[in-house]
Amino acid sequence: MQRTSALILIGNEILSGRTQDENTQFLAYQLGKLGIPLQEVRMIPDTREIIIRTVVELRAAFDEVFTTGGIGPTHDDITTPCIAEAFGVSLEIHPPTFALLENHFLKENFNAARQRMAYLPQGAIPIANPISLAPGFSLGNVHVMAGVPRIMRAMFENLAHRLKKGTPVISLTWHAFSLYEGNLAEGLKTIQERYPQIDIGSYPFHCDDGIYGVALVARGQESITVQKAASDIRDLIVSKGGCPLQGEPLLKPIKTENNLPNKRYST
Amino acid sequence: MQRTSALILIGNEILSGRTQDENTQFLAYQLGKLGIPLQEVRMIPDTREIIIRTVVELRAAFDEVFTTGGIGPTHDDITTPCIAEAFGVSLEIHPPTFALLENHFLKENFNAARQRMAYLPQGAIPIANPISLAPGFSLGNVHVMAGVPRIMRAMFENLAHRLKKGTPVISLTWHAFSLYEGNLAEGLKTIQERYPQIDIGSYPFHCDDGIYGVALVARGQESITVQKAASDIRDLIVSKGGCPLQGEPLLKPIKTENNLPNKRYST
Repeated sequence: MQRTSALILIGNEILSGRTQDENTQFLAYQLGKLGIPLQEVRMIPDTREIIIRTVVELRAAFDEVFTTGGIGPTHDDITTPCIAEAFGVSLEIHPPTFALLENHFLKENFNAARQRMAYLPQGAIPIANPISLAPGFSLGNVHVMAGVPRIMRAMFENLAHRLKKGTPVISLTWHAFSLYEGNLAEGLKTIQERYPQIDIGSYPFHCDDGIYGVALVARGQESITVQKAASDIRDLIVSKGGCPLQGEPLLKPIKTENNLPNKRYST
Repeated sequence: MQRTSALILIGNEILSGRTQDENTQFLAYQLGKLGIPLQEVRMIPDTREIIIRTVVELRAAFDEVFTTGGIGPTHDDITTPCIAEAFGVSLEIHPPTFALLENHFLKENFNAARQRMAYLPQGAIPIANPISLAPGFSLGNVHVMAGVPRIMRAMFENLAHRLKKGTPVISLTWHAFSLYEGNLAEGLKTIQERYPQIDIGSYPFHCDDGIYGVALVARGQESITVQKAASDIRDLIVSKGGCPLQGEPLLKPIKTENNLPNKRYST
């Protein structure tokens, strides 16, 4: 079954460059495994109209929408009331959350700002937060999580089991060492045309020890077709005189390119 | 002068979780310095209709639009023809680029796939690429760059000088050690109301050696007002018994949170 998702990263700190997003890669990978692959990501500021407009648009276009950021106690944490407004429901106190937070902070420190975190939109189902306690929530097909990566991951663990799963995305990667994209492009195009339901991606890599090549990825929801396409990719690498090495989809690039000198490289 | 920008990251590899985006933070920071702050980022797949629709929408909404990804020689590199289509112009051979690439690859290796990189939309101004030679380009207010971070950065260096600059964004940060967001939220809200033209952000941090606190950021285009707001933030930290430490806006988080145990932390 084909299911789709989108992610909205809410927060000025990402758009200003202050904060490096670490949530997209984690969620993209997890959602692929659950068969609800990510189709679009938007990074937007902590601005009421923009949050509401983006949620309304994306929840109509995709099966599931995830948000991260903006659910803490400060004035710039406005995600929860915006989601309520996007759904046309009011905020209401969530008594178990109120009790949990009051017990944690003790009465004298449980001030108005912290009490805000115990209000959820009417009809929301909390997403438990084992780290800083204030929960996220699901409302319809929108799932609201914290922005801090460690808290978001813990929330997602508590959310994943209740998401309706689709067919998992399978990904097979061959690394073509000592070849350039330009050597492989025509053959890859033929393979892509042979398997239109598979995404075939081509990603060059260059390491500072002089090793280079292209990572070729076949990705899709039909296991047999992904395997066939990957096998054709392997044959293509060999036919071009390259050295194929199979690898898992890499969660981190082989080598970060940030600090390499601007030496030439070829396509 | 208030100028605005948006960024479109084009590529299935980011949406699948294969590749960690490193371009947003760099461009966000650079564009803030140039006074063309980033207002929105979209990550979209290598899909013709989606690329065209997104470019048309965002270039009408923002002063400048930057794209990364999809300008190499393989079948999944479709950004250039999509931009041409979004502008209703055709692709045409760019003779200096053709000569440059032909000279680099030598005639016998300059195949059809590589020749594609010498075609630019009618009216495009190339963005020189000192690393892998195939250029990016500007067409109207859309600036098309490579997806590989090292190449994108080199292209941006060659592009920045011809962008129309606005008033630079200034950012001042105070770290409030040993305080939680909940201690500061009410005071911060008052400061935000006092300086509505400044963005005041609040970002908790927790290090695994037990050090914790909140980074408080005042950010805006009026230098004097940013300084006033930052000074009020400092006074707030002191009034709450915290230890204020001024810091530059951090390009990397103080400590990555990826591998920390899921220990409790407070808000």
